[in-house]
Amino acid sequence: MSRPLLQLALDHTDLQAALRSVSQLKDHVDIIEAGTILCISAGLNAVRTLRQACPDHILVADLKVADAGETLANQAFSAGANWMTVICAAPIATVARAQEVALSYQGEVQIELFGRWTLDDAKSWRDLGVKQAIYHRGRDAQASGQSWGAEDLKAMTALTELGIELSVTGGITPADLPLFKDIAVRAFIAGRALSEAPEPAGVAGDFHRQIDRIWGARK
Amino acid sequence: MSRPLLQLALDHTDLQAALRSVSQLKDHVDIIEAGTILCISAGLNAVRTLRQACPDHILVADLKVADAGETLANQAFSAGANWMTVICAAPIATVARAQEVALSYQGEVQIELFGRWTLDDAKSWRDLGVKQAIYHRGRDAQASGQSWGAEDLKAMTALTELGIELSVTGGITPADLPLFKDIAVRAFIAGRALSEAPEPAGVAGDFHRQIDRIWGARK
Repeated sequence: MSRPLLQLALDHTDLQAALRSVSQLKDHVDIIEAGTILCISAGLNAVRTLRQACPDHILVADLKVADAGETLANQAFSAGANWMTVICAAPIATVARAQEVALSYQGEVQIELFGRWTLDDAKSWRDLGVKQAIYHRGRDAQASGQSWGAEDLKAMTALTELGIELSVTGGITPADLPLFKDIAVRAFIAGRALSEAPEPAGVAGDFHRQIDRIWGARK
Repeated sequence: MSRPLLQLALDHTDLQAALRSVSQLKDHVDIIEAGTILCISAGLNAVRTLRQACPDHILVADLKVADAGETLANQAFSAGANWMTVICAAPIATVARAQEVALSYQGEVQIELFGRWTLDDAKSWRDLGVKQAIYHRGRDAQASGQSWGAEDLKAMTALTELGIELSVTGGITPADLPLFKDIAVRAFIAGRALSEAPEPAGVAGDFHRQIDRIWGARK
């Protein structure tokens, strides 16, 4: 199982504030995410600006596409995204269109798992060539006290067995990481845990040390 | 049953192009929608600009919110939206936060029905005070030939019986309207059928004449 990457989610409502987080953290993370809040606040200019600020990082456009997969994928990938999220509730035709466009840019679609979805859905995404999903403890679910549980880990294991790599997110801290040691984790996604920390780079270091300890050091 | 309204969905990737549609059509529609594609392309500046261009219309921010309900609702309603969409896959906590913010602005949340949802979900939305949902034949589903069917009408009837008003969308034409005569339709949403018509105002007139014929003339 490959070593999970660390992803900085930028969920600022202000692009300049997001860029300040980026300048503090870009040397300490592997992936930069233009979060939904930022994309909606600033539009795809957020993705273009982050591409310029971080030319060598993997860049995610977290659009949670539900429809118009071709148009939105063209918008996201032409703005410089490497990966784009599609919500699990999207019709399979939307996933297919997004995936076609992603491939034409050598990009990837990530299915964002929210609400009701089934393993049959996951098989149909995989059959379209989708390799990634995002396993999410929602911000609001988290605020209302919903924690990581056995059900989460069971679902993540089933997705791992289907060959789908997961990015894991939702108030995650370095202390949570051992929970996921048997899961095919592509990335751990942290937003405010990094950007609002008193010492952001220190927290990123804590994540990397935990990842090294559990999955082995970076080669 | 009240007379359905006509909603212009603006799904342009370019705000100036959207504004050209608005200037052609605003006197012929009841509701202006900043579509997801437009909101992602231009950010919430699209909503602010449309609010200025159409100070007296109902304005919808079609954000399909899946998380961060409070933040995104504050962004949308403070930008001038009257209604904001939340995707059915969102955690119930997200719907609750969005609804609280909507009420504080005298706005409304509309649940966008995509993929898997149940009547129990619909009851829980209604119990939070949500009064509207959007019944969607997706752009991609539509392009792949999926039509309005008995299942759609059955689901719409069940939602009507729960007291949820529906906005109906997805390649809808005036000729489709009689299908929905027994449904509590708050609005018919048309995008390219209006904005890409050779005579946009003429098509809007066709919609209004069909609505008058089926639901009775505007008072």
